[in-house]
Amino acid sequence: MDSDFAALEGYRLTAEPYYQPSGNEIEVFEAAYRHRIPLMLKGPTGCGKTRFIEHMAWRLKRPLVTVACHEDMTASDLVGRWLLDAEGTRWHDGPLTLAVRHGGICYLDEIVEARQDTTVVIHPLTDDRRILPLEKKGELVQAHPDFHLVISYNPGYQSAVKDLKESTKQRFAAMDFSYPAAEIETRIVVTESGLAASEAEKLVSIAHASRRLAGHDLDEGASTRTLINAGRLMHAGASVAQACEAAIIVPLTDDVEVRKALRDAISAHFA
Amino acid sequence: MDSDFAALEGYRLTAEPYYQPSGNEIEVFEAAYRHRIPLMLKGPTGCGKTRFIEHMAWRLKRPLVTVACHEDMTASDLVGRWLLDAEGTRWHDGPLTLAVRHGGICYLDEIVEARQDTTVVIHPLTDDRRILPLEKKGELVQAHPDFHLVISYNPGYQSAVKDLKESTKQRFAAMDFSYPAAEIETRIVVTESGLAASEAEKLVSIAHASRRLAGHDLDEGASTRTLINAGRLMHAGASVAQACEAAIIVPLTDDVEVRKALRDAISAHFA
Amino acid sequence: MDSDFAALEGYRLTAEPYYQPSGNEIEVFEAAYRHRIPLMLKGPTGCGKTRFIEHMAWRLKRPLVTVACHEDMTASDLVGRWLLDAEGTRWHDGPLTLAVRHGGICYLDEIVEARQDTTVVIHPLTDDRRILPLEKKGELVQAHPDFHLVISYNPGYQSAVKDLKESTKQRFAAMDFSYPAAEIETRIVVTESGLAASEAEKLVSIAHASRRLAGHDLDEGASTRTLINAGRLMHAGASVAQACEAAIIVPLTDDVEVRKALRDAISAHFA
Amino acid sequence: MDSDFAALEGYRLTAEPYYQPSGNEIEVFEAAYRHRIPLMLKGPTGCGKTRFIEHMAWRLKRPLVTVACHEDMTASDLVGRWLLDAEGTRWHDGPLTLAVRHGGICYLDEIVEARQDTTVVIHPLTDDRRILPLEKKGELVQAHPDFHLVISYNPGYQSAVKDLKESTKQRFAAMDFSYPAAEIETRIVVTESGLAASEAEKLVSIAHASRRLAGHDLDEGASTRTLINAGRLMHAGASVAQACEAAIIVPLTDDVEVRKALRDAISAHFA
Amino acid sequence: MDSDFAALEGYRLTAEPYYQPSGNEIEVFEAAYRHRIPLMLKGPTGCGKTRFIEHMAWRLKRPLVTVACHEDMTASDLVGRWLLDAEGTRWHDGPLTLAVRHGGICYLDEIVEARQDTTVVIHPLTDDRRILPLEKKGELVQAHPDFHLVISYNPGYQSAVKDLKESTKQRFAAMDFSYPAAEIETRIVVTESGLAASEAEKLVSIAHASRRLAGHDLDEGASTRTLINAGRLMHAGASVAQACEAAIIVPLTDDVEVRKALRDAISAHFA
Amino acid sequence: MDSDFAALEGYRLTAEPYYQPSGNEIEVFEAAYRHRIPLMLKGPTGCGKTRFIEHMAWRLKRPLVTVACHEDMTASDLVGRWLLDAEGTRWHDGPLTLAVRHGGICYLDEIVEARQDTTVVIHPLTDDRRILPLEKKGELVQAHPDFHLVISYNPGYQSAVKDLKESTKQRFAAMDFSYPAAEIETRIVVTESGLAASEAEKLVSIAHASRRLAGHDLDEGASTRTLINAGRLMHAGASVAQACEAAIIVPLTDDVEVRKALRDAISAHFA
Repeated sequence: MDSDFAALEGYRLTAEPYYQPSGNEIEVFEAAYRHRIPLMLKGPTGCGKTRFIEHMAWRLKRPLVTVACHEDMTASDLVGRWLLDAEGTRWHDGPLTLAVRHGGICYLDEIVEARQDTTVVIHPLTDDRRILPLEKKGELVQAHPDFHLVISYNPGYQSAVKDLKESTKQRFAAMDFSYPAAEIETRIVVTESGLAASEAEKLVSIAHASRRLAGHDLDEGASTRTLINAGRLMHAGASVAQACEAAIIVPLTDDVEVRKALRDAISAHFA
Repeated sequence: MDSDFAALEGYRLTAEPYYQPSGNEIEVFEAAYRHRIPLMLKGPTGCGKTRFIEHMAWRLKRPLVTVACHEDMTASDLVGRWLLDAEGTRWHDGPLTLAVRHGGICYLDEIVEARQDTTVVIHPLTDDRRILPLEKKGELVQAHPDFHLVISYNPGYQSAVKDLKESTKQRFAAMDFSYPAAEIETRIVVTESGLAASEAEKLVSIAHASRRLAGHDLDEGASTRTLINAGRLMHAGASVAQACEAAIIVPLTDDVEVRKALRDAISAHFA
Repeated sequence: MDSDFAALEGYRLTAEPYYQPSGNEIEVFEAAYRHRIPLMLKGPTGCGKTRFIEHMAWRLKRPLVTVACHEDMTASDLVGRWLLDAEGTRWHDGPLTLAVRHGGICYLDEIVEARQDTTVVIHPLTDDRRILPLEKKGELVQAHPDFHLVISYNPGYQSAVKDLKESTKQRFAAMDFSYPAAEIETRIVVTESGLAASEAEKLVSIAHASRRLAGHDLDEGASTRTLINAGRLMHAGASVAQACEAAIIVPLTDDVEVRKALRDAISAHFA
Repeated sequence: MDSDFAALEGYRLTAEPYYQPSGNEIEVFEAAYRHRIPLMLKGPTGCGKTRFIEHMAWRLKRPLVTVACHEDMTASDLVGRWLLDAEGTRWHDGPLTLAVRHGGICYLDEIVEARQDTTVVIHPLTDDRRILPLEKKGELVQAHPDFHLVISYNPGYQSAVKDLKESTKQRFAAMDFSYPAAEIETRIVVTESGLAASEAEKLVSIAHASRRLAGHDLDEGASTRTLINAGRLMHAGASVAQACEAAIIVPLTDDVEVRKALRDAISAHFA
Repeated sequence: MDSDFAALEGYRLTAEPYYQPSGNEIEVFEAAYRHRIPLMLKGPTGCGKTRFIEHMAWRLKRPLVTVACHEDMTASDLVGRWLLDAEGTRWHDGPLTLAVRHGGICYLDEIVEARQDTTVVIHPLTDDRRILPLEKKGELVQAHPDFHLVISYNPGYQSAVKDLKESTKQRFAAMDFSYPAAEIETRIVVTESGLAASEAEKLVSIAHASRRLAGHDLDEGASTRTLINAGRLMHAGASVAQACEAAIIVPLTDDVEVRKALRDAISAHFA
Repeated sequence: MDSDFAALEGYRLTAEPYYQPSGNEIEVFEAAYRHRIPLMLKGPTGCGKTRFIEHMAWRLKRPLVTVACHEDMTASDLVGRWLLDAEGTRWHDGPLTLAVRHGGICYLDEIVEARQDTTVVIHPLTDDRRILPLEKKGELVQAHPDFHLVISYNPGYQSAVKDLKESTKQRFAAMDFSYPAAEIETRIVVTESGLAASEAEKLVSIAHASRRLAGHDLDEGASTRTLINAGRLMHAGASVAQACEAAIIVPLTDDVEVRKALRDAISAHFA
């Protein structure tokens, strides 16, 4: 146990990550964790999925190994590989294997972005076998009793060519996430940027205006994250217009008309 | 024999995997095994093919080497490769070679997903020669008398670009699998989740409702696996609605209408 | 000579492979072998090409190096490569080089599946030069006087993008193969499965029925191989229906109508 | 701190890079830097984005690690890799890791050109975690307090297949750049080429004429850079016509008509 | 000189390759060789280009390094590469470098099949510089005075995507090749197969019949090579029909009608 | 300086390359060189760009490092790479780095053919920074004061998928090249082939005839290079018809009609 603790020491959260629950997500997570049912977090960009899993790892006192998946990621990046050193080749556990072997929570962010061999690698970890075959090493790792697997999935991104197979999806219990309710989002902006509540409230209203344009004039609306950036710029002395321009309007769109519409919304709220 | 036993020790099943037969599949498997006729298991996601092969391996007292195939898998991943160590290169048997050499059952799950060179590699194992040429090693491995080859195939997945060649298919005897009959599936859910039979029965009815939508509103219906997940969440204290939402509805679809239809089916059965 | 014998020892056939000639194929092969004219065997899946070449190798008392080609196979897989060991790199002859150097018959099964560099590699072996340049080794191997090259080719598989170049084809003498005549095929099934001749005859009639569907409802008809599998299952105690279902119908098609047509043909013959 | 200074010594600017501000870009940059909010500079070719970031690095007295991204660039090129030396493998920090570890500004020029795994690698550096996971090394690098991340983005280049994901964009505050106003651009040409102001003014007018053709007859108008090149050629003794031909007309287009239009504009201004 | 001789010893022709000239090709080759003007041999499959270059190498007493190009061939395969051995890496000259350094004739057969980097590599060898830059070795090899470069090109094969660039083509003097005149081709068949002249004459007439079908029913007509194969089979005891079937008809086509037309032509001539 | 001299010794021109100027190209090159403004030479195949840059290198007494770019060329081929030797890995400067470090002229011939990462690598060398980051080595090479960069570009070759980006083009001053005027081209043919002026003049007229067909019946007209080849063959004893056939007609086209038109032009001039 001591060696497990040491192996994942860098992955322990030392302070409580601030999280504002929106519903019963904490209870459902704990029920799934109790039976080690793998979990899938579904939801749009920047709505708090990463913060939630950090909060749960802290709450459950488990180390958290986060892997941001991408289209060049292969199973070896997750599982590990042989590296050459002075005495010859040495096996190097990948982040998934670290969590499996030593009992961490492994969070595979946007696993659908990775190459297909990565989804196959997690299959035997998500049924009663709870094993991870390291084929290149010739080892079958039996998962540590505390190991838990969580993945995220952004339904807006998926396309016909890039989607999870049914045989993968049905191995997970799943939870929907979306932007927090206005009062909750205001409280988050206040906490994270140091802005006054009255100002934060206006930023949240602007975000709501932008989210109504999502799918039409914008790909996605302003995330909570952009509001925090705007709040911090204001806190650092930028004017409302400067901060919203830099943190919300310019990142979101290059379209002259849409930019004008967003600027009008800002004037309306901060006038 | 002792060294064969040792080589595959990690692949022996130590407890009987629970399996509920639906027809004469055990007899057909045993007849094929007697003549070492390679077998192909055909059927949809999560209907019990993996559990069946585990059960047969336990029954026949053979170690089981399972390989989940994927589109980046090459023949070397199956057969083995040279690895560098302090004394130079050393040959490392892949999972197929392990089974061939030491007399295990090798189960290639969804072999059609792998690159074509993998199917070619199994050809000389599936006729009277029963040999595995390790071309990169310059060795011809004569299969152990107990070696047996089993592959799976999901007819719903295949496309024109990804299918087994006729010259591969015709080397196998094949068996159809589908979801178990209602009473059998209920018994499986009871056994695996600890739920009461009356509750399990209702979950099975919901699965049947979802399977009627498969091919139209859903890609596939709810598998037995999702029912077990729901049962376990209920057993861990979640309400029926919470458990079905997390284990069945959210994983299966993002479509608002289809979700509503599934929720209606649930209310109807649990009301 | 002794060292040549040793190098190919694993590739010698120790028992006569059963082969039932259909025409003058043995004479033509021997005439071509006498002048070392390279040979191409043309024909559909499972009609006996592999068995024929094994028989000829046994008859001519030559070791047989068989290579099943596939789309990831490169010239290096045939010719050889440098491997690292404790004293540095060491050249490792590939299967083609083994046969060229030590006087075996090299059989390249479905060479058109391999990458194009493989066909170029065999060109200087198929004219009066009879040499194999190992470019990465800087060696020109003069073929052993007994070396002979044979390739196979399935005309039904070729497409515009994957075909042998004219400059390759015209280097070979070629022989057509197809399914054996009914009496011969019956005798093969009897010999290989241990079934009674009357039963074997019925299986052959079923194969003929299925071959009439080839190109329309089926990609290819039932090969001799599937009949042998069916015969062996019957011999192991399976009923006619069970054996034909497992060895012929389920491997060949997933189409409900075509399966029914095949089942009707079986009932007609075994009723 | 001393070792950080040494590690990035080659990346310190030793002389003040000349920069002529067009608006409040220096203040916005400093506000974002104070909170370490990652920045995105948006604008066309050669309008001064690179010069601006060099100026800011000099102003803030931070070393500047610039990486020009391209379509063959992978995460390893940014993050680092294992290299073999006499004692085995040794980890070699990539340019991003250098900046993260030792507190430099990392400027990823046209990051959208790089492969997608590079954008994923910067995600955990752009939220509160400020960490860089070196997965292949098994190290989590906590960013140095002075580390700052800046990227550039040319909206004119992006296409549907190559764009930043929303979940990346919204992590950055952004600033628009375009060609400087005429008086400012004239002053830049004078300073950088040594040309008289009256001549530089005429070159700027020619650039304006060319920019009116951008999107129609030209892909882009003449950048400030081409004006400086023309000025320097004139300063080195070339005639106005020679200098403009070589530095502006021939690089911009091969179209005979467009070249004539540009030559007419030049005659009009220098007649 | 001695070491040059040794380096290319395996590439010297020890016996005069039989060649029957069709026109002034020997004189043109010698004129080009005198000024080391690179040569391109153009013509269809199996019409004698390879034999011609072997004959010229023998005539000019130069070693001949033949490289059959293919689509996976890269510049490194021609030029050389670093190989690892006990003392570290060692440079290994490729076949082109061998000929350049030690004064051989290098014959690149179907260079257009190779990857484009190979054509770029020969450019500085085909103008007054006569150098070969080994970029990976950091060496500029000045060509040996006797080095000569010859390439072949089959105009019938080229497509829009695979053709020599003009800047490559115009570096070569070129010569057209086609099938030899009837009397000459007859003499070749007699010499190479040992057949009587009257029989060889008939085979040549059949080849002419097949060449009239080229471009319509056949991709290419029967090459001289196929006639020699037929002649040898007849010499080894095969009947006319057997020999022509195996060496001409079956290799050339699978079309039932075209096969019949060819068989009729054979009966007409041998009746 | 001595070590710089030694490092590039093989790249110095020892004899004056013959070059016949067509306009003010020498003066423009020298003006650009004085300010180290990077240069782009634009023009068709074989019109003398390579000879011009060799002449200028000789004139300016700078070593010339020429790199013929191609579609498999990557940044590492230009910049350098790590090679393994007995003491571990050793950095090996590529041709661009050699020129940058030691003060040569680097000529990248047809850079647009190379992979995109190569163009990115030259960016920081083409502005005031004049640096070359060796990312894999972790070194920033400050260019030697004498380093100069020249690239070539054939406008006729570029397509939408393969073109220089605007942000690359506008970093270069550019010069147009085309075939030399008739008297100049005649003088070149006389000098390089030893032919009499009256004969050379006729070859030039034939080239003019062929260039009128360029873009219609021919891809490009006969280059000066082909005229020199024809002149040399005539000088070596070939007849006018033989020489023009081999050096001009056969290399340029396989079209029977166009060949006839070219032959007519030749007869007209040499009759």
